[in-house]
Amino acid sequence: MNPKINAFTVETLSKLENPGLLLLSMNKAGKSNVMTIGWGLVGTFWRMPVFMVAVRPTRYTHEFIEESNEFTVNVPADGMDEIVQHCGTISGRKVDKIKEYNLTLEMAKKIKVPVIKQCKIHYECKVVHKLQVTPKLVPPDIKQELYPKSDYHTLYFGEILTVY
Amino acid sequence: MNPKINAFTVETLSKLENPGLLLLSMNKAGKSNVMTIGWGLVGTFWRMPVFMVAVRPTRYTHEFIEESNEFTVNVPADGMDEIVQHCGTISGRKVDKIKEYNLTLEMAKKIKVPVIKQCKIHYECKVVHKLQVTPKLVPPDIKQELYPKSDYHTLYFGEILTVY
Repeated sequence: MNPKINAFTVETLSKLENPGLLLLSMNKAGKSNVMTIGWGLVGTFWRMPVFMVAVRPTRYTHEFIEESNEFTVNVPADGMDEIVQHCGTISGRKVDKIKEYNLTLEMAKKIKVPVIKQCKIHYECKVVHKLQVTPKLVPPDIKQELYPKSDYHTLYFGEILTVY
Repeated sequence: MNPKINAFTVETLSKLENPGLLLLSMNKAGKSNVMTIGWGLVGTFWRMPVFMVAVRPTRYTHEFIEESNEFTVNVPADGMDEIVQHCGTISGRKVDKIKEYNLTLEMAKKIKVPVIKQCKIHYECKVVHKLQVTPKLVPPDIKQELYPKSDYHTLYFGEILTVY
């Protein structure tokens, strides 16, 4: 993997589960939405640096990524834990989380979806593949714990176009 | 992500593309096979530490993982570049690469598939999910370059049970 991208991996993965990362997406009308993610995979696929994120089809973000095929992953700076926690519990359909938390959106370098200025690391990603979690291949305990509503995740494989 | 696992990530991802990592699998008869991988994703999924590997259905390794649902990923030590390069070009159906290169297999701690003693880092993984690359969602240039034989990868999501 590109050494520059790889250098960010430890901090990214260590913050992934706690407090979480901020996934930013935009719909075709140009509206942005933010959600917190606690899962994700980073590495190389199809010779590209890739960030894989998982989004349930019921999420507002799902609609947005389907429309734009792009997203940014933003690694929060210290002191942003409360924001990250809240962005994981409220839907963007009900509240404009970006406005509510005074998050500043900045133009990305390679895609239309912006990045969050207050964050420390920014990944700009273009969706190169997507797959649906296959219900019949989900272990029974995971199914019971994570999919009581059968809203199986879409896995978006995003080519990392740049990170900084 | 578990700090212990995360600490190994930089070295693992930096060796992934060059020279590559060694993926070890075992069939139900207890025979092991090794192949070189240049792609893979590491992170958290379903609250588990996960190593995702991609194996074409035509590969000997594919048959082995399908039979055992386990694999180990072994990060080569310095000086193993030649072995890694060769293990990526010959099929285990034709040559016993483990014997040919005097690789020493050691009992893993949590699974039946062994690890390669000469390597530096060992991931023991249990398959928790698998997905098939979806041909109609593969970008045309990737399709042409990587799938002229239509042998689309199976993506194995392995829970990292331990790493050392």
